[in-house]
Formats: sequence, structure tokens, C-alpha cells
Amino acid sequence: MLTRIDHIGIACLDLDRTVEFYRATYGFEVCHTEVNEEQGVREAMLRVNGTDDGGSSYLQLLEPIRQDSPVGKWLAKNGEGVHHIAFGTADVDADAEAVRGKGVRVLYDEPRTGSMGSRITFLHPKDCHGVLTELVTSAPPAEREH
Amino acid sequence: MLTRIDHIGIACLDLDRTVEFYRATYGFEVCHTEVNEEQGVREAMLRVNGTDDGGSSYLQLLEPIRQDSPVGKWLAKNGEGVHHIAFGTADVDADAEAVRGKGVRVLYDEPRTGSMGSRITFLHPKDCHGVLTELVTSAPPAEREH
Repeated sequence: MLTRIDHIGIACLDLDRTVEFYRATYGFEVCHTEVNEEQGVREAMLRVNGTDDGGSSYLQLLEPIRQDSPVGKWLAKNGEGVHHIAFGTADVDADAEAVRGKGVRVLYDEPRTGSMGSRITFLHPKDCHGVLTELVTSAPPAEREH
Repeated sequence: MLTRIDHIGIACLDLDRTVEFYRATYGFEVCHTEVNEEQGVREAMLRVNGTDDGGSSYLQLLEPIRQDSPVGKWLAKNGEGVHHIAFGTADVDADAEAVRGKGVRVLYDEPRTGSMGSRITFLHPKDCHGVLTELVTSAPPAEREH
């Protein structure tokens, strides 16, 4: 069951400049950064608010570290902007399976590692009215990678 | 001060079909529908979660009622997908003024009426790293248009 908007993933050309834009313009601060080699991105998480399922909603700023990464190719085609949206769930495996059973293509056979030790999968945007959609289960607090 | 992700605005070609996709796939239900003649859209709000500022986060599904509306033109160029993101604030006037003072173009001289009697303004996507960004102050509960 999807219980929150976990994050909005925003593709950018220069992570440092984009982080600075969000800080200077709105006061949003970076709470976490990491490089995800598998996804081919360098990213910064900016926490915006807490949610009533005990989680949080973030902006996730993404800069490709390789031109041939999914985000790199997307940026080359679309320019900077919203790349995907992510819904939080306590059980990404069950929700991915349920969604697959409804005929929506799930891009990974098994969930992979996302930000801060989370487990994530993606749904095909063509099956979701044009929206690249991520499902994410946060790591337990003790296991989060800071 | 921006205190929540208020909504993600998603442009679609057929509101009823898109509402049905979000209901059947994820169980998200429509909590509000309206036609905004000024914006040239028919829209449905799907509440996803509550937020720790006392508000909520929604998906806002938008179908243009005119081809020459901003959403209609955007859809013709981009196809279905995420059209904008919106941050909630208790004082859209003050935040719009503050952002304007930082050199970000604010699209309206004064906030206009958004979903459920809210007051909204938009920031130019070219000043926001490609993201059309809305600032929104919800109406007091008694004044919400249901």
C-alpha cells in the first residue's frame, strides 16, 4: 500500500548549482548525498516535510555521472526537469508484485538499492500515463546510509 | 516559508481514464474535482498523505478544456507526464515576493485561485532548473470549495 509521496526526482546538469538554487531560493537544505554507481547518478536529498505514515517527503536532485546512464540520456533528450515521482510503501516487494499483476510493467525483477539504503523499483512510464514512477521502501533508521 | 510538497501536477489527455488508472493501480481515490476556467483545465485531486505542517500531499490530474490553454499547449509538445510541482506555504504572497526578490520570475502579479479555493502562483521554469514550480496557500477549511 502506497502511503506517501516519498520524493520528486529532478534531473539536473550541475548538482552543486541546483542544490544552491534550492537552498538560496527556498531554504531547503541537503540532508544526504551519495553516488549510486548502478543508477549512474550523483544525488542530493532535500527533506521538505514529514508525512503521516512516519516517513518524509524529499526532493531528489540527480546529476548523471555517465552520459549513457538513464538520467544522462533523459537529460540529453528533455533538458533539466522532473524525471520521476516516487511513492513510499512499507513493502515494495508486495506492491511491485501487485502492480505487475495489474498489467503495469515493472522495470526490475527484484527491487534494487536506492537513496539512503532504501529498496526501490520503477514502473514503465508508458504504462503510467507518461509518468516514470518509483516505488520505495525506506531502510530502517539504523540501516540508513548517511 | 515552504513547509510541504503540496501536490504534483500531472497533465493527461483523458481525466476519467487517468483517474481510473490511479484508482485501480494504487488505490488512490479522488477527493475533489473542479473545472478551473481561468487555467483552462478540468482537474481531479487525489490525496496521498497528510503532512506535518497540518496539510496534505496530493496528485493533481489535469486535462485541458482548451487546446490553447497552458496545459493544452504543454501536452501537445510533451505528451502526458509531470507538468509541475507545488510547495505549500502559509503565506503565498510573502513567499512569492521573497522569491521575486531573489531574481526568480513569478508569473502572476498577484496570486490567483487554485484547487479547492487555494491561492497560487507559478515560478518560471527557466529560472528553476526546468521545473515549473507552484506556490500554494490552502484555503481555511471552512472556505474550501468541495
